[in-house]
Amino acid sequence: MNGLDLALRDAGAAAYAAYGSSADANVRYLTRFRTTDPVVYIQRMDERGMIVVPQMEHERAVRESPAAVVTRADAGYLEYIKAGESRWRATAHMIADLAAGPILVPANFPLALARELESFHPVILDEKGAVERMRAVKTPEEIEQIRSVQRAAEAAMERGIALIRTAVQKNGVLHRDGRPLTSEAVRTEMHTVLLAHGCRGVDTIVSCGPDTALPHNEGFGALLADEPIVIDIFPQNEQSGYHADMTRTVVRGEPSPEIREMFEAVRDAKALSASMIRAGAVGADLYRATVEFFRDRGYESDTRGFIHSLGHGVGLEVHEDPSLGPQGEALVAGNVVTIEPGLYYPGTGGVRLEDMGAVTETGFDRFTQYEEELTL
Amino acid sequence: MNGLDLALRDAGAAAYAAYGSSADANVRYLTRFRTTDPVVYIQRMDERGMIVVPQMEHERAVRESPAAVVTRADAGYLEYIKAGESRWRATAHMIADLAAGPILVPANFPLALARELESFHPVILDEKGAVERMRAVKTPEEIEQIRSVQRAAEAAMERGIALIRTAVQKNGVLHRDGRPLTSEAVRTEMHTVLLAHGCRGVDTIVSCGPDTALPHNEGFGALLADEPIVIDIFPQNEQSGYHADMTRTVVRGEPSPEIREMFEAVRDAKALSASMIRAGAVGADLYRATVEFFRDRGYESDTRGFIHSLGHGVGLEVHEDPSLGPQGEALVAGNVVTIEPGLYYPGTGGVRLEDMGAVTETGFDRFTQYEEELTL
Repeated sequence: MNGLDLALRDAGAAAYAAYGSSADANVRYLTRFRTTDPVVYIQRMDERGMIVVPQMEHERAVRESPAAVVTRADAGYLEYIKAGESRWRATAHMIADLAAGPILVPANFPLALARELESFHPVILDEKGAVERMRAVKTPEEIEQIRSVQRAAEAAMERGIALIRTAVQKNGVLHRDGRPLTSEAVRTEMHTVLLAHGCRGVDTIVSCGPDTALPHNEGFGALLADEPIVIDIFPQNEQSGYHADMTRTVVRGEPSPEIREMFEAVRDAKALSASMIRAGAVGADLYRATVEFFRDRGYESDTRGFIHSLGHGVGLEVHEDPSLGPQGEALVAGNVVTIEPGLYYPGTGGVRLEDMGAVTETGFDRFTQYEEELTL
Repeated sequence: MNGLDLALRDAGAAAYAAYGSSADANVRYLTRFRTTDPVVYIQRMDERGMIVVPQMEHERAVRESPAAVVTRADAGYLEYIKAGESRWRATAHMIADLAAGPILVPANFPLALARELESFHPVILDEKGAVERMRAVKTPEEIEQIRSVQRAAEAAMERGIALIRTAVQKNGVLHRDGRPLTSEAVRTEMHTVLLAHGCRGVDTIVSCGPDTALPHNEGFGALLADEPIVIDIFPQNEQSGYHADMTRTVVRGEPSPEIREMFEAVRDAKALSASMIRAGAVGADLYRATVEFFRDRGYESDTRGFIHSLGHGVGLEVHEDPSLGPQGEALVAGNVVTIEPGLYYPGTGGVRLEDMGAVTETGFDRFTQYEEELTL
């Protein structure tokens, strides 16, 4: 009995229904079908899941998806549309026919669809996130897919750092081919490496100097010598949809004493949390241990200092379960998580280091092999 | 009074609320903030919109978003979490405090959030899609942004077609540097061109031969001589989020007579629809005119032949309002739409040509300038 069947039984539901494009990680996980337009996924108790697609997607869905494939026409959708029902009403009508009883839906199920569905059958919210929980525990195949994305991430990181290492310093600004080396140029070169690995980079962070004090600042303009440069890359494999996630902080030249100390604290915090990870370790405990570690080194964890969580699950989403933050629950073997302590001080700058790996019964199978050297 | 204020008045709501990451086009449109994690957007009647973000995103949101920026802490979220409320409950509680009355929400509003919200205030579904309707009518600035993405798309198309044009034919297979030229290689080269233009390509179609009979088949493996190659590219600008969308069909060598005739019919169908577009023209009429045009040339429009709609709006989503399909409504000046007739016959192959442009009072301001030649 798989996770969804258990959730159906617990909820007293006849079927589970999800609605979305493959940008919705649950839909992608359940269907393994890549689509920019939304599709319907339905799984009845003890049955194989079913995906409902437009006629023109039928053959491709049969090729790509392990689910049973039904066209909207065969499922009655087009008839309901012809009868004058709205798109949401017709979709709900079709789902109700297929489910033939109470329907369990995910938290992000569209309200418009739920309201129509409620006129046919009870709509039960999947409070516990059955699919998110299934997704959080990776199969060996998924772990290998994520590991391979990590290899692509490291190739891209190596390219980005090589550009910084080989840049020429002129008046405190890094130069390449006689022009300032910019955040944008480094990002583009890294993304080009990712493409060659079948991956895409989105919103890769290459921030420098004061900008590094904002953890999610993407960075722009010329890169500076003697200032921290934070590179955070979270590519997605185009075929599989799986992500990797890694961060390094480097300085070309001489870091300030503050940045050097922050780097050492962050590096040691990461080593500490890596040593604590194993099945049964609690995300919130790992987070609090990091807060305490930083406090002992003289750093805060509120609006300055360590201002985000310690880490998060990685899979079809960059950020997914489990959390290594204040609300984090117990880890289980097969979780793939990041550990990414960071310190941020406006005026001084920011430092973050991030590794990723799988939780095992006995420890942390770290995928990240890239070195962590501050100065280039 | 903007579109949202009108919708609030019509619905008798105190505020509009949306929830999502910038992958949600409505959220991106309203906030202009790029984030992989969901944020809350709230707009009260006659007030400036407001975005609620985590503390660590505050400064970046102030930089990027024209909305007022409030941290979750200041909005009371963290207090509700500390009091033991679930994430959905605390988010709803915070939204309810800010709205202080009935709340209008979009169709895709998460059911989990709606159910919590309903315990505070009435939750009214925005049946008419106020934000989608605002998004469908582009400002001159948006039109220029989309036009510039189209330039990037054409540069990438030129690169892809150049690879096919200059390939060496060996035993019916296109070769480059002594190896078969593959769909994947062409896609990667095209995506590299897009990167250099600050755009990303996702799921670009480079399909060949029998695969072209499936309109959304991405294509893989060696490209063949004398067979149709369909290239459909819909890049997104990383900064602005706007898309372009274009398709060309080419044959290296000698197309079959069937493909040649299909190409001519598709080209003429596109010219016909381009000549009919203007403010006031009805999407469904344009679609039906294309169906009739194809019928006169001997092609069906059901499970074979012309099996998709004539076109769609393009903006922060690749597919958005208005539709040029069977349900399409009247166009208005400022719509940006594709026209993309296609014909698909299993065994023979497929042909599609797609241009994009803005609807004006008097016609179609076509952005696409790329030639449409079948044989290379």
